[in-house]
Amino acid sequence: MNKGAAEGSGEDRLIARHFRPLAKHPGALGLADDAAVLTPPPGCDLVLTTDGIIAGVHVFPDTPADAIARRALRVNLSDLAAKGAKPAGFLLAVALPAGTTDEWVAAFARGLSEDAEHYDFPLLGGDTDHTPGPLSISITAFGTVPTGTMVRRSGARPGDALFVTGTVGDAALGLMLRKDTHAGGSLTAAQRNHLLTRYVAPEPRNALAETVRTHASAALDISDGLAGDLAKLCRASRVAVEIEAARVPLSDAARALLAAEPALLERVLTGGDDYEILAAVPASKVERFRAEARAAGVAVTEIGRLAAGDAPPQFVHVDATPLDLEQPSYSHF
Amino acid sequence: MNKGAAEGSGEDRLIARHFRPLAKHPGALGLADDAAVLTPPPGCDLVLTTDGIIAGVHVFPDTPADAIARRALRVNLSDLAAKGAKPAGFLLAVALPAGTTDEWVAAFARGLSEDAEHYDFPLLGGDTDHTPGPLSISITAFGTVPTGTMVRRSGARPGDALFVTGTVGDAALGLMLRKDTHAGGSLTAAQRNHLLTRYVAPEPRNALAETVRTHASAALDISDGLAGDLAKLCRASRVAVEIEAARVPLSDAARALLAAEPALLERVLTGGDDYEILAAVPASKVERFRAEARAAGVAVTEIGRLAAGDAPPQFVHVDATPLDLEQPSYSHF
Repeated sequence: MNKGAAEGSGEDRLIARHFRPLAKHPGALGLADDAAVLTPPPGCDLVLTTDGIIAGVHVFPDTPADAIARRALRVNLSDLAAKGAKPAGFLLAVALPAGTTDEWVAAFARGLSEDAEHYDFPLLGGDTDHTPGPLSISITAFGTVPTGTMVRRSGARPGDALFVTGTVGDAALGLMLRKDTHAGGSLTAAQRNHLLTRYVAPEPRNALAETVRTHASAALDISDGLAGDLAKLCRASRVAVEIEAARVPLSDAARALLAAEPALLERVLTGGDDYEILAAVPASKVERFRAEARAAGVAVTEIGRLAAGDAPPQFVHVDATPLDLEQPSYSHF
Repeated sequence: MNKGAAEGSGEDRLIARHFRPLAKHPGALGLADDAAVLTPPPGCDLVLTTDGIIAGVHVFPDTPADAIARRALRVNLSDLAAKGAKPAGFLLAVALPAGTTDEWVAAFARGLSEDAEHYDFPLLGGDTDHTPGPLSISITAFGTVPTGTMVRRSGARPGDALFVTGTVGDAALGLMLRKDTHAGGSLTAAQRNHLLTRYVAPEPRNALAETVRTHASAALDISDGLAGDLAKLCRASRVAVEIEAARVPLSDAARALLAAEPALLERVLTGGDDYEILAAVPASKVERFRAEARAAGVAVTEIGRLAAGDAPPQFVHVDATPLDLEQPSYSHF
């Protein structure tokens, strides 16, 4: 993108037709320059994150174009939310396989546009290429926080309460249903749909960002599974925690599936793609954190209290016997 | 990247071993958080640009890893230079094909590290994935300028002098030699090497960035060929220009090749990958522009004067007859 709009090349026509309407931010310069300009508000830091999607790796190749666009934006918005940052805008690098139709690009741009509008997250610029490989999208997201207030992984202290937003494991169970249409036979159509939707369309918790920023001592979003991401928080903050598995918030659908097949608990605790926020909150701030989350309309559940020590986090059964996870962290490698 | 360093996953080990040593900027948080922090200097805008490399599209698949890394950084540094911006840092998204060896990643990181050091351009964060497709690298570059001073494509005025840095066409001729080892039989080994090197390792003109910022009315870097990029500047600024082809600065090697095969002039004027800066400079600032460029050690050549009008730019022969270019702009599409 930013390659000289009203021009004759295929790339320029593509940009002009589909992406320029999204570039409403003045700093995007109508996608008609080589770079974008962002003037950070005085007294603010910029929070920067980049996360990509490759067809066949992060999404099924037949995922609709608008759903791919939303997912690409939302996984980045989720990172901003967990860091307490307000979305400021994004750059889009997209590599299109040969044979990508104009209709596909139009649907992709529509998905992007709707979410950009909804999250007040304007397109600032980007880069478009063709590739002999699979569709590949890389988004760089910018957010702002008052200087020095980005929430890190490393600020949690023993005694802090550990909170998680929403429900855990739905996306991993949705992925299972997507891969194996015979699985989950006991579910109602609504339950099945809930899990599939949670996998396809994550709901980043940006409504909670300011609450996280002002009350959390450490936070990250759960993209690689609760167990794995909790381990990162504990390691970075040098704290330990024992979590009774029954306290982990589940959706009705996940609960129904677990009732029929208890062994799925491991998948719930370690599967990726939740895009919920895991946050440590000092005891003195817990009540305000809860109240503000309620006001923001985001469910939060306390799942444990952090302790001193550098043992890896441990999930336990109701009777306090340890729950051994075979593959605690989710990784594409 | 930013996915939880000292951890067990392949991605985390890769990051820790090869990329963390590059993350010297405090805002990179040692690549051990989910986002990076950039505190822009007061009174500054951030200049944002993203440019990618896909093996087989932008570079030959057998290009050495360190050369790919340098090229990926430099094409972005070149955009910052042309916009008058001072490099502040970059994010790296890399998708590695199956079978990428540790040695490859080590060489890639070494190339990146050497250039990051040389251009004072620290790694801030990124994202690492595996891909079933070709190697793919997307870099997002950040630069700073005093608020409101980013040099655009659109500020040139009739009467401004048109300057180009360095020499034009070397990379396109180098690419030709790379593709056809029988071409350029009349060249000396040194000339051949010069052209090949100019193709493989662009030299972004960041030493001239501050001069461009303070004296140029419009500028962009020549990535898609002099003719095509000049057309973008003229269109954005609504100016016209007639350029005598003989005024376009050529290297000795390009001159030797053109003497043997005059038809290559079109390739010189339209071929991509020069990464020189094309800048319009108001007449009143020309002398200072020249003097500062000399002091910065960057050759600059005046190739024409801008005129009013919205005709496309025209190259002409010495006798003023027009030079018709078959494909004025270079495009990967």
